[in-house]
Amino acid sequence: MRARELASEFPTVTLETDALAAAQLLADRDLPGLIVVDSAGLPDTILPGTQVLRFAVPRYVQDDPKLAAVVDEMSADAFCQALAGTPVRELLPAKARELPVVDGGDTVLEIAALMARTRTPVVAVVEDGRMLGAVTLDALLDRMLPR
Amino acid sequence: MRARELASEFPTVTLETDALAAAQLLADRDLPGLIVVDSAGLPDTILPGTQVLRFAVPRYVQDDPKLAAVVDEMSADAFCQALAGTPVRELLPAKARELPVVDGGDTVLEIAALMARTRTPVVAVVEDGRMLGAVTLDALLDRMLPR
Repeated sequence: MRARELASEFPTVTLETDALAAAQLLADRDLPGLIVVDSAGLPDTILPGTQVLRFAVPRYVQDDPKLAAVVDEMSADAFCQALAGTPVRELLPAKARELPVVDGGDTVLEIAALMARTRTPVVAVVEDGRMLGAVTLDALLDRMLPR
Repeated sequence: MRARELASEFPTVTLETDALAAAQLLADRDLPGLIVVDSAGLPDTILPGTQVLRFAVPRYVQDDPKLAAVVDEMSADAFCQALAGTPVRELLPAKARELPVVDGGDTVLEIAALMARTRTPVVAVVEDGRMLGAVTLDALLDRMLPR
């Protein structure tokens, strides 16, 4: 079993994707993060889901969590307003997280070793200059465990 | 909307749970991690899914990823043997990850601020000395985004 056979479609965004659309993709697909691809469609980095919150939650609340209890409710309107019109580029952490990439011919053990070392539950699969999809920790465990 | 209304059932393990059972729970439920509860059933820490791989992938392969390409295939038998009979206690990282905990009465904004600050996509909800469940990033985004 090689990476190309384990790879499945995984939602991607670009640096220009609207942050609200990215948040909706995260919610719809129940994902811990999204793969950010460059203009050639190749994997560039990962947008962790919690990073969307870092952008949408007012700065003063993050600096002083006690304020969050006072501001009774975060309105859905305010949340969407903070995200709509903002490109994914602005949501990425200053030090972008490394997105592990494997070759289509890599083995299950290579993928597992890479996930273990980088502590990342998803790796992108690239072959012949094209992204085939991604292998998730879940897909890897499904492959390794008895049913 | 308060944490107690957003909380849903979330799979837990104890320090004594067999690692193979924990891996199966991760795979079946497509989760990034499991909540580890203490003997009173209260949330203690989180077992990241990738930590299971750190334990199951032979040490020499993690130290030298090139070896993973040589060892052609990790057999499912070897994988399961590495996990079966090992308690979750031994899988936890030396520096266990902080599991964010909120009170049942905490607001959506408090949960969002905590997830943003700790960069953790799941928080446990505790009320009256009992764990009610957990709120995931996904549940929080579902609540905040227009349908």
